[in-house]
Amino acid sequence: MGSPERLPHDGRPAPVEQPEDDRGQGVNQLGVKSVTPSTALPVAALDQLRAALGDAHVCIRPEDLDRSSRCTIPWQSRCAAVVFPGNRDDVSAVLKIAAAHGLKVWPFSGGRNWGYGTTLAPEDGVVVMLLQRMNRILEVNDELAYAVLEPGVTYAQLNAHLKANGHRLWADCIDGTSQGSVVGNALDRGLGQTPYGDHFGNLCGLEVVLPTGEIVRLGGTDEGPKTWHLHKWGVGPYLEGLFTQSNFGVVTQAGVWLMPEPEAHASYVFELHDERHLPQVIDAFRRLALQGVVTTKLHMINDFVSLTVVMQRIEQQRPDGAPLSAGEIAELRQRYGVAPMTCAGGLYGTRAQVRLQRRILKRAIGRYGRLLFVSDSMLAVLERVLGQAWRKPWLRALVEKLAGSSLQVLDSAPHVHRLLQGVPTDYFVKHAYYRHRRRRPDTAIDPGRDGCGVIWFAPVLPFTSAAMLPFMAQARRRFEEFGLDYWVAVLVLNPRAVTCLMNILYDKDEADEARRAAALYDALVGDMRAAGYAQYRAGLLAWPRLFDDAPALLALNRRIKSALDPCGILAPGRYGVS
Amino acid sequence: MGSPERLPHDGRPAPVEQPEDDRGQGVNQLGVKSVTPSTALPVAALDQLRAALGDAHVCIRPEDLDRSSRCTIPWQSRCAAVVFPGNRDDVSAVLKIAAAHGLKVWPFSGGRNWGYGTTLAPEDGVVVMLLQRMNRILEVNDELAYAVLEPGVTYAQLNAHLKANGHRLWADCIDGTSQGSVVGNALDRGLGQTPYGDHFGNLCGLEVVLPTGEIVRLGGTDEGPKTWHLHKWGVGPYLEGLFTQSNFGVVTQAGVWLMPEPEAHASYVFELHDERHLPQVIDAFRRLALQGVVTTKLHMINDFVSLTVVMQRIEQQRPDGAPLSAGEIAELRQRYGVAPMTCAGGLYGTRAQVRLQRRILKRAIGRYGRLLFVSDSMLAVLERVLGQAWRKPWLRALVEKLAGSSLQVLDSAPHVHRLLQGVPTDYFVKHAYYRHRRRRPDTAIDPGRDGCGVIWFAPVLPFTSAAMLPFMAQARRRFEEFGLDYWVAVLVLNPRAVTCLMNILYDKDEADEARRAAALYDALVGDMRAAGYAQYRAGLLAWPRLFDDAPALLALNRRIKSALDPCGILAPGRYGVS
Repeated sequence: MGSPERLPHDGRPAPVEQPEDDRGQGVNQLGVKSVTPSTALPVAALDQLRAALGDAHVCIRPEDLDRSSRCTIPWQSRCAAVVFPGNRDDVSAVLKIAAAHGLKVWPFSGGRNWGYGTTLAPEDGVVVMLLQRMNRILEVNDELAYAVLEPGVTYAQLNAHLKANGHRLWADCIDGTSQGSVVGNALDRGLGQTPYGDHFGNLCGLEVVLPTGEIVRLGGTDEGPKTWHLHKWGVGPYLEGLFTQSNFGVVTQAGVWLMPEPEAHASYVFELHDERHLPQVIDAFRRLALQGVVTTKLHMINDFVSLTVVMQRIEQQRPDGAPLSAGEIAELRQRYGVAPMTCAGGLYGTRAQVRLQRRILKRAIGRYGRLLFVSDSMLAVLERVLGQAWRKPWLRALVEKLAGSSLQVLDSAPHVHRLLQGVPTDYFVKHAYYRHRRRRPDTAIDPGRDGCGVIWFAPVLPFTSAAMLPFMAQARRRFEEFGLDYWVAVLVLNPRAVTCLMNILYDKDEADEARRAAALYDALVGDMRAAGYAQYRAGLLAWPRLFDDAPALLALNRRIKSALDPCGILAPGRYGVS
Repeated sequence: MGSPERLPHDGRPAPVEQPEDDRGQGVNQLGVKSVTPSTALPVAALDQLRAALGDAHVCIRPEDLDRSSRCTIPWQSRCAAVVFPGNRDDVSAVLKIAAAHGLKVWPFSGGRNWGYGTTLAPEDGVVVMLLQRMNRILEVNDELAYAVLEPGVTYAQLNAHLKANGHRLWADCIDGTSQGSVVGNALDRGLGQTPYGDHFGNLCGLEVVLPTGEIVRLGGTDEGPKTWHLHKWGVGPYLEGLFTQSNFGVVTQAGVWLMPEPEAHASYVFELHDERHLPQVIDAFRRLALQGVVTTKLHMINDFVSLTVVMQRIEQQRPDGAPLSAGEIAELRQRYGVAPMTCAGGLYGTRAQVRLQRRILKRAIGRYGRLLFVSDSMLAVLERVLGQAWRKPWLRALVEKLAGSSLQVLDSAPHVHRLLQGVPTDYFVKHAYYRHRRRRPDTAIDPGRDGCGVIWFAPVLPFTSAAMLPFMAQARRRFEEFGLDYWVAVLVLNPRAVTCLMNILYDKDEADEARRAAALYDALVGDMRAAGYAQYRAGLLAWPRLFDDAPALLALNRRIKSALDPCGILAPGRYGVS
């Protein structure tokens, strides 16, 4: 499963029709300074890149370009080369060569940012720079609970390293792919699960290669002071934020704060009985977050999210393009034992502290649904029972009856529990295949490679039911209007703000569906802007208009961009700045 | 007391000799682009400033200039004018006029930054811009626990406003002056007391006037999105950090996160019995901080700090310039009931959570000294008893005997307790008068106005006894070498880093002492650099060499400075960048 031979698109990616509105405008609307007319690199540039990195690390074979010219979003561009620097000096060399030849360089740490853009540039003919080879774990400090990583280090790698070396430290991870880049996600200001889930908030001490090739360590001294990875703000202007969601430099090394393994940990799952109590539950969670009881990046998902993890559209009796009807949803809820809304989070501390937090949580939301706590010891039992139940129908029936959930749904509990301990899993990425025409793989899950259709829309809202529910209701109507299924996960950014993360799942092989997906995204972005909100993280599709309501801020960003990247070589147009 | 008539220097400030090393080099070593030869402003510039702000808000009378040309540090410069803009458009106008006439503008929010630089520029002839008139509290949001403030709003003003309007929100404050600027301190990345004590960390959503006069709201839209004060990172490059410890713009409005009043709060004071246990105590506190039990900016002060709050040098029998001897310290410890090291912090949560945290704290450090908890109800009793004890010698004797502390020391407990609830006090600023020749005032405390000698030195160290204790021992020897008293307060920046905040107290009227104070500061900075550390916040004296070990970082800062301030008008040299 998932071997290269089985790729749905093993040559050039299947042509994906772009949404009507974008046709003919192409790359220009993305605000890039100029369009490279040809996709081939000048021979002299190629020679210099090869001399700098070694032949093996400069790829221009069609299949290599294809691999880096694919994404789950309805956008198509083709790079001219893919380069793999091995260290910061290589990165610097690539940027200098690019400046000399007027090439555009698009760096990506891991390149698994499905739904936002993966390794796509808005335009053809760029040099994609993948930092996967730079995957050294440079330091792990037990006493002060941090690690220093290169951008190629993945969640799975870091987690395995910590376990193998007996570090009692947990590295927060995403609930997306285990192969994501720890540093890359933090630079895009991604979110995790635990109290360390604000990934940029827990990034401390960066080494950056500027577009002009200079190497700078931010923090106070060029070597990095001894507190480089301990004190986030350093001395003098705090510059690290410049290198997040931006194109001002390439981060080649970063400190990441880790969570010391607590004495006790429990995960909890809360299943809302009745959607009419959603306002009470949301506002109770906000109050708990402001009090410091809810410290994780609490997820709250709708029924459709749960369904996309346990099933695919092609399993339905009428697997046409229409979204699931209310009746179908009701039937599937029943079949799989899925609640209208499900929340999950973690509790950490001493045993007594965790017990106390359980009581506080129960008092605050217990009346509105079912609140289940899972401890490490319960987990072991649960996993044994689940393993048996899949094989023994009588046990399965008993377990499903007692739990009020299907085995499929119960299966996710160990993954949730371990995610909240920093153990990554590919379990939940499976949802990206929901509308895919082929059965999803069990291993080597890669929605980008497999041509799944996924667009993330990530508006930030105040953490109040009064702000969130009308916004979510409007968004739901938009999904219905465009004939796509409403998928929403509310993630707590901090005690004052959430992102109502929406996922537009579509069949990429259906031109009409792809067009509708893109149009739905535009409509959602338009509604968001009209309501006075912004995204916490924006994909390639959003960049051209990201600063439409902020000309002064765009001008400021452009002034900084010109100062740091006078030749305009580094990812022009990323996050709307060129 | 403290009325203008009693100012020690009511004309030009008393001449303070500069340290030998600095003589003859003056302003140039501060790295500013050029030196203004005369202190008088061009008439045309003055006329334009008056037209823009109104005559009353452009001051050039000698007494006005004097007031803004004083500080507690051994540095002397004289400004050419002091201007008081009333709003962001005034700020913009001042900067445009400055650009047209080649003036240098030094903005200060409150101008009470004693020990770092107050309202001093490194050079003569600048325009000091004080933002005190911009003191509107623009919004307080109870549900989402934040306020939006102009930079002139003081801690006392914000606290009074919250109390008067029944907001159940606490605004973290410094333990320095109650008249400090909430926004100004946060922009200098100052520290407070409570879990919200990382002031920049709790700043969210800035409005900035750029040196070229444009007004920009950082956060996503030019109006500020509705989540402007809720989600710190916004979308696109995170730029707010640029405007902290810098000269890249003037912040005219900012969101500040507030702490919802918890169900329960206790403050604690821990008195270390024996300095030999300091390693255990420090490392225990780090572990508690990493576990999330210690959430306040825990202070740990040495005996001399306690003494400077309750007494002045002139009260001593031999009030000469020599530092207190070991014998004198021992005698004073005994007399005032002061421990070798004293810690203070706060606990917050539900009643049960606070009880539990008390138990955890007791278990971790109880064996090493005396751990006292103060609750609101105890505080009321304590204050009544103290009030009586000051008047009744028999009660005083009894209380001092029972507490093992002097009334002077016990008097600070209510101030500590309330600081940990966000209530500012001028109580602790009194320490700045320790070496002052006159008795300190009881009210209207202003060490800058009164000519006290104070220099802050604020190195960041790893939060481990292994790193901190050798550094502190070396610093202590430096204080002894230069004949000054060793004053240290360890403040927890975060669970991984502390600042060992040192205060060089000296008699500003003694030329030799001022010279030794400056030389001690230089020696401490030198030792710090040699050990591979940096300051968390640097005063004017440190700016010229702030980036000596970071030429690449300085070059990056300069590139940004040139892009944003092409005429070099805004505070050139602040934090080492010009």
